[in-house]
Amino acid sequence: MNVEFINPFLLAAVNVLNTMTFTEAKPRKPYLKEDSKPEGAVTGIISISGQAEGSLAISFSHECICHLVANMFGEEVSTINQDVKDAVGELTNMISGDARRQLAESGLPLQAGIPEVLSGPTHKVEHSLTAPTIAVPFDTPGGEFTIEVCLSD
Amino acid sequence: MNVEFINPFLLAAVNVLNTMTFTEAKPRKPYLKEDSKPEGAVTGIISISGQAEGSLAISFSHECICHLVANMFGEEVSTINQDVKDAVGELTNMISGDARRQLAESGLPLQAGIPEVLSGPTHKVEHSLTAPTIAVPFDTPGGEFTIEVCLSD
Repeated sequence: MNVEFINPFLLAAVNVLNTMTFTEAKPRKPYLKEDSKPEGAVTGIISISGQAEGSLAISFSHECICHLVANMFGEEVSTINQDVKDAVGELTNMISGDARRQLAESGLPLQAGIPEVLSGPTHKVEHSLTAPTIAVPFDTPGGEFTIEVCLSD
Repeated sequence: MNVEFINPFLLAAVNVLNTMTFTEAKPRKPYLKEDSKPEGAVTGIISISGQAEGSLAISFSHECICHLVANMFGEEVSTINQDVKDAVGELTNMISGDARRQLAESGLPLQAGIPEVLSGPTHKVEHSLTAPTIAVPFDTPGGEFTIEVCLSD
């Protein structure tokens, strides 16, 4: 994977969470993810196609997604119900869109599928390709989430 | 264009505006759109690819988009500034995503590009194909917007 692909996704996560959930997110150190274990309690995953192919996943801790969704809709949330899963799908779609907007400006137009949302302690985060998956954990005042990007060019 | 393609886009517009902007939208009568004149003051347009190809546009009147963005972010808005254009892009991305989710459930998976946002009295809404464009105006308590769908199968 071209490592220059990763930054637009990190910036997109910061932008979208800031705009939509009024939450500041700070990236920690990236690592290579070599299994399909979920990093959080609920994960949105979306396929990416075009000049680079692969997928983007965003995995939120239980406390983090409840904090984000509460900020987004102005209502307390304590369980990962259908509304929360819908919000994870929308956030995944928006982060993919914002990252692709940046990549298109750099001359790499990409398309995206629709987000799938998985949850529970044993869900699997399976990227569509065997390209390396780069994972970047983020801290927010409400808890942690992780971005995973797997893209082959 | 298969007219069954249109309903998911109308439902998606209703869903997304309800969830994100707390605004009820009611469709009026569809019509065939045969020029590239904008129906509103600001338009988001996104390409669609896969088993059906074309584009989706959403054109908001000035008063309608100011009402929607004010509801979305809890701040008064009176001009179509960069924040408003960004919101039009996000709404276009979300409506495309929700419509494609419904179409995928019916066995028609589609991909999407990234939204382009155009504004001003003379902007052109040019769909990517020569397939017919179906337009559907919507009323909201804040004003009017129009969905345009151009898809060839």
